[in-house]
Amino acid sequence: MANLENEELEKLSKSSVALSAYEMGQLQDELHDWHVEMKGGVNQLFRNFTFDNFAGALEFTNKVGALAEEYNHHPEIVTGWGYVQVRWWSHVVSGLHTNDFIMAAKTEQL
Amino acid sequence: MANLENEELEKLSKSSVALSAYEMGQLQDELHDWHVEMKGGVNQLFRNFTFDNFAGALEFTNKVGALAEEYNHHPEIVTGWGYVQVRWWSHVVSGLHTNDFIMAAKTEQL
Repeated sequence: MANLENEELEKLSKSSVALSAYEMGQLQDELHDWHVEMKGGVNQLFRNFTFDNFAGALEFTNKVGALAEEYNHHPEIVTGWGYVQVRWWSHVVSGLHTNDFIMAAKTEQL
Repeated sequence: MANLENEELEKLSKSSVALSAYEMGQLQDELHDWHVEMKGGVNQLFRNFTFDNFAGALEFTNKVGALAEEYNHHPEIVTGWGYVQVRWWSHVVSGLHTNDFIMAAKTEQL
């Protein structure tokens, strides 16, 4: 899947299913700086971004927040002095969906 | 210590020391919604705030960020859909200082 960041998000429902380990691996090939982490039994797509100070970090948090609002898909964002950690996952599938990899790719473009 | 939120922050140095458990307990009496959590071997002062949506959460994150910049003391802020988690601690003492309780009290005023 080329240009993951340009793919359209799929509307999820209760019958949507999480990606298999194989599918996650395929999608992750395009996102070298992201890794899959299990947290509370739920697979999440995680990346740490570094910044020179707190203001730069908070500015990035707001950019990620605006992206999330635009696509109505929301990550967890950890903001600290010099870093921002972003975690994407899909609540309805209790894990990762292609949508999360698309959002991670869009996050990379910010 | 009445009106903790109006206290002035102390400038910390390498000789500054973390609060004792007794001192933390005394200060925490004023901050019922905050609790002390150890994370990575470091005591942190933690509170979860809830919101109706993502935008409200991000708005609060920005208020906490502005407070942090004003006092040049920075927390870790977790922003998600409907919640913001704030963690205060003092890097130089590898734990909690009175400054963190003052910042938590100021956070309550936002």
